[in-house]
Amino acid sequence: MAMFSALVEVRLRPGIADPQGATIERALPALGFSGVTGVRAGKSFRFVVEAADAAEAQATARALCDRLLANPVIEDSSVTVLSED
Amino acid sequence: MAMFSALVEVRLRPGIADPQGATIERALPALGFSGVTGVRAGKSFRFVVEAADAAEAQATARALCDRLLANPVIEDSSVTVLSED
Repeated sequence: MAMFSALVEVRLRPGIADPQGATIERALPALGFSGVTGVRAGKSFRFVVEAADAAEAQATARALCDRLLANPVIEDSSVTVLSED
Repeated sequence: MAMFSALVEVRLRPGIADPQGATIERALPALGFSGVTGVRAGKSFRFVVEAADAAEAQATARALCDRLLANPVIEDSSVTVLSED
């Protein structure tokens, strides 16, 4: 069994209100940033998976994400197995 | 000027206590996930930057991250300019 680093990004689906992102976007002009739009805030998770190969690590990370980390009603997620440690 | 999609990941530095990650990790065995360790929770942000080229978009996103999105005392961050829209 090898150890694989996994990265999960969870973000709100398009159309779901994002007050945190909207607040950041409103603050930007006062801080001197112009031309930045569409700010969306989400979550990221990193963890280490013990698995036989990268495909099994990907499957475990995807199942974990779908059951525990993301709410599929309002959130999209992407799972990346980064490297074998 | 072109539009570039940027992705920022903000995560706690190694050694900084992460109660959210620890809580997720404790919940995993009861959900049938074994062999998952080192869970760390962080934040992700996506936005669109108007810039002349990818290098300028990267610089703007990095400055925005350092000033507004991450606390460098306790957090690391990575900035990726994903694509020209």
